Amino acid sequence: MKKGDIFYNFVLFSPDPFVLYCQVKSMLGSLKGISFEGRINFPEVCFRVFPENRIASREGVRSLEKAKETLRKNFGKNIVSEDGTTLPLRFLRELFTRRLKFACAESCTGGAIANLITSIPGSSSVFVTSIVSYSNESKENLLGVDPVTIRKYGAVSSEVVHQMLNGIIKKTGVDCAVATSGIAGPEGGSKEKGVGVVYVGAVAPEKKLVKRFEIKGMERNDFRVLVAFVSLKFLLEILEGACYKSKKKGKL
Amino acid sequence: MKKGDIFYNFVLFSPDPFVLYCQVKSMLGSLKGISFEGRINFPEVCFRVFPENRIASREGVRSLEKAKETLRKNFGKNIVSEDGTTLPLRFLRELFTRRLKFACAESCTGGAIANLITSIPGSSSVFVTSIVSYSNESKENLLGVDPVTIRKYGAVSSEVVHQMLNGIIKKTGVDCAVATSGIAGPEGGSKEKGVGVVYVGAVAPEKKLVKRFEIKGMERNDFRVLVAFVSLKFLLEILEGACYKSKKKGKL
Repeated sequence: MKKGDIFYNFVLFSPDPFVLYCQVKSMLGSLKGISFEGRINFPEVCFRVFPENRIASREGVRSLEKAKETLRKNFGKNIVSEDGTTLPLRFLRELFTRRLKFACAESCTGGAIANLITSIPGSSSVFVTSIVSYSNESKENLLGVDPVTIRKYGAVSSEVVHQMLNGIIKKTGVDCAVATSGIAGPEGGSKEKGVGVVYVGAVAPEKKLVKRFEIKGMERNDFRVLVAFVSLKFLLEILEGACYKSKKKGKL
Repeated sequence: MKKGDIFYNFVLFSPDPFVLYCQVKSMLGSLKGISFEGRINFPEVCFRVFPENRIASREGVRSLEKAKETLRKNFGKNIVSEDGTTLPLRFLRELFTRRLKFACAESCTGGAIANLITSIPGSSSVFVTSIVSYSNESKENLLGVDPVTIRKYGAVSSEVVHQMLNGIIKKTGVDCAVATSGIAGPEGGSKEKGVGVVYVGAVAPEKKLVKRFEIKGMERNDFRVLVAFVSLKFLLEILEGACYKSKKKGKL
């Protein structure tokens, strides 16, 4: 074996990547027999772990395996991939494997989800459309959101996101979709719903969910990118849950 | 006056910002009595020009004025602003001043235009929606593009972009819009239409234009961002022309 022959290249995701980065770094620093390089590729965190001095000796391999186990045990729920694959790519691969078509209805993300997805070559085999319904009128006219619902609950509400999901599925006939509505700031917040409040919805075959998040103290564009990642993660989790259940039923 | 009190902060745009950057740098280097800092903020080029040693003496002011004149004369058509304003912000301000509503129909840009626009706080007062119609079906179902036109001319064609413009205006009732269809690569090119071919359309009150561009040797994501800028520039130029004509007619 030659130098650098073996390594563990893993990507993590967290709504708070800075904190996660420090936690992982601290844990890796406490392990023996390994060295590592890490970086934040907002909102993801990437680490590459090598045997100490990058020598692939038997002892080095053992240390690396031990490091893997420790990391999986402590950060398992944050690990996106163990081969350097980022969340959007993993998301696209998942849909591609299952032959599912995808669309989105974006308000506060303002095209950030579509932009993230279409930055990956070959995404056209999975991604159908995004309706970036920034104004209330476009939510009503293009996605069929009820103006009464907007008046009653506000454009940033679980109710509106539910209707955005219904609208995008109805308009495009896709198998799964995400929708977002939130307050990216710096203006537009209220006492009830401050800057950073966002409703993210996801629909997959046989399942639909909308969740409220509060992402505080984040700059407008970081907020938008983060919400785009959160949306993809949300749908991915639903799909993985659905897959598990469907497998038992022998459906997928 | 104190050090650094005066400067000339200008932003330029070109489909080939690297070449432009070198040209401007070379010209500034040949001028006397000034110093400068420049950077490429793809696809824009930004320069800040000071009197030599940043001293705002009478002579320094004169040198700076001379530099301004030279730059305006040689790069006038590339200058986006002389106060550091970037193209998307200038675009939004123009629409805001004229009280025009804006939407887009994006194919190859895949949400990059919406993403660019909505990254600016306050964009919601101008920007209504973007329909990211990535698949042919979404061009037909969401924008009313005729499937016969797609079969006859291909999705990447002037004819389809004209229909995308008609569709987005009809669906949203906005005053002006842009539409894009092109081959971002790395796959998808043909002999007739290779990677980098793109049709950009823009519609403003009383004017509609579609133009073919060929942007060669550019990485997929740079291509998408560049086409987004080209689209905004295209509409801005039409608006400025329309404004000039309309002013004579006393309409705007």
